[in-house]
Amino acid sequence: MKELVSINDQIYSIKEAKISVFDRGFLFGDAVYEVTRSYGRIFFQIEDHIDRLFNSADNINMNLGRTKEQMIAHIYEIYKKIDIDNIYMRIQISRGDGPIGMSPKLVKTPNEVIYMYPFQPSPGEYYSQGVSICVTERRRNAKRALDPNIKSGNYLNNVLAFIEGEKINAYETFMVNAQGHVTEGTTSNIFMVKGKTIITPPEEYDILKGITRKIVIGIAQNEKFKIEEKGFGLEELLDADEVFLTSSTREIMPIRLINQNKVSAPGAATRILHSKYKEFINDYCKRAASTHPWK
Amino acid sequence: MKELVSINDQIYSIKEAKISVFDRGFLFGDAVYEVTRSYGRIFFQIEDHIDRLFNSADNINMNLGRTKEQMIAHIYEIYKKIDIDNIYMRIQISRGDGPIGMSPKLVKTPNEVIYMYPFQPSPGEYYSQGVSICVTERRRNAKRALDPNIKSGNYLNNVLAFIEGEKINAYETFMVNAQGHVTEGTTSNIFMVKGKTIITPPEEYDILKGITRKIVIGIAQNEKFKIEEKGFGLEELLDADEVFLTSSTREIMPIRLINQNKVSAPGAATRILHSKYKEFINDYCKRAASTHPWK
Repeated sequence: MKELVSINDQIYSIKEAKISVFDRGFLFGDAVYEVTRSYGRIFFQIEDHIDRLFNSADNINMNLGRTKEQMIAHIYEIYKKIDIDNIYMRIQISRGDGPIGMSPKLVKTPNEVIYMYPFQPSPGEYYSQGVSICVTERRRNAKRALDPNIKSGNYLNNVLAFIEGEKINAYETFMVNAQGHVTEGTTSNIFMVKGKTIITPPEEYDILKGITRKIVIGIAQNEKFKIEEKGFGLEELLDADEVFLTSSTREIMPIRLINQNKVSAPGAATRILHSKYKEFINDYCKRAASTHPWK
Repeated sequence: MKELVSINDQIYSIKEAKISVFDRGFLFGDAVYEVTRSYGRIFFQIEDHIDRLFNSADNINMNLGRTKEQMIAHIYEIYKKIDIDNIYMRIQISRGDGPIGMSPKLVKTPNEVIYMYPFQPSPGEYYSQGVSICVTERRRNAKRALDPNIKSGNYLNNVLAFIEGEKINAYETFMVNAQGHVTEGTTSNIFMVKGKTIITPPEEYDILKGITRKIVIGIAQNEKFKIEEKGFGLEELLDADEVFLTSSTREIMPIRLINQNKVSAPGAATRILHSKYKEFINDYCKRAASTHPWK
């Protein structure tokens, strides 16, 4: 098979994969999810993604009914049915389906949906020339309302920000906090380079703890960059030497336009970091291929 | 039939009603909805609910593909298949299903789901003795992030608030804004009575414009109460003579405990307002039964 959807351990084609309209994921976005991709047959940083999935679930009082190790083994077991190497994998677990109402007690068992299909790489020119982004005035959901660290089925805040960016043909849109500081994109984190310093919004902000973000910070430190996790606004961003975004599916992507203003892209720092990031992926995949028990 | 789900004009049993796992309602909560009930064969205030549905859709750039009149006629047409009088009706319209991604352009047509089943009235003692509520410190989603006036598939903020209330066996839980003022419940609005004055959070707050809320304000004015739409915190609420909540499915429900502190319930004002509200329902239904074109 080239693609499939697993729903509670049953395999479906993409067209036939359906869920009850009484599922709380559909009704309320009462669900958690993660996305990663495989390089060859290895899901990159799967342990970190599953950690974060469990963290999201803990934060909404949802019990996933498996251990982390069982979840990883389960995902690899499903992957055996797919005979292509580089795939997109999304796992979404809703609280379950049952009578309509706010109380989670109305449902018994989570519904688990695992999507696997060929990974579509971003066009090469996105990396060679950089992409156009929007920094909107829309606020990111506040931690005290709905913590962005819960990677959940509530992504309308992000969708609405994305729609604003689409009006100026932005490829990605970044939201701000109450101080007007940039927080995160709809599905990515942001970094700016100033000389030998790399700056990114701090984890304490209303952002998801990005897995690629964390790796990039480690790589930048190895490469003798100074890392500053601190807030900045649009003005400072426009003044940066280089700006790039990070995400599991896009790795490190240079930014060339911000709200239609030109920034230098792709710069030398972005290129070095991306090349080191690719080495990191190779090292991870080699190590994982020889040690993973679910091989 | 006693119950059904209509999905894009096809009728299903509750058990068989399913939606694609690629539906953006399931993936992102990218959907709008309304709930009302019928009294006899009349959907109470259906025009206001459909107005609000269209307003929610406008606010997320979603085109519902019908006029408001067509939508109401359509709902009544489906209702003909049900042979019981008092039903719960939920209409949820998602942006549609398609490839996974933030852009609404990835999908073509909304998916419309209409749920109809017997209305389950709240137990009589909830009205005769009042219910227990929680006022949590959790913030309501801010307008600048995700406007609570969009009645959407993003209800995790509400679900998380509800879970906090459940710890003290609260029947409903109310969220606050950045000033610590009470905003709205997970599925209801709140009022307090002080002498001949009735106070409720203003529409400018991070709240949904409640349909029952608006009717109650009108009734209270007719009954010579002074209406104040203004902010208040937990302390002021505990100091009220009477407190009640409003919602389309619960009408006017007295509150007897707030964070486990006793308040006087049900009070005389709450009783008068509820009795006048029932008259309002009767008047509406009589008028609607004789004039609705879709009869």
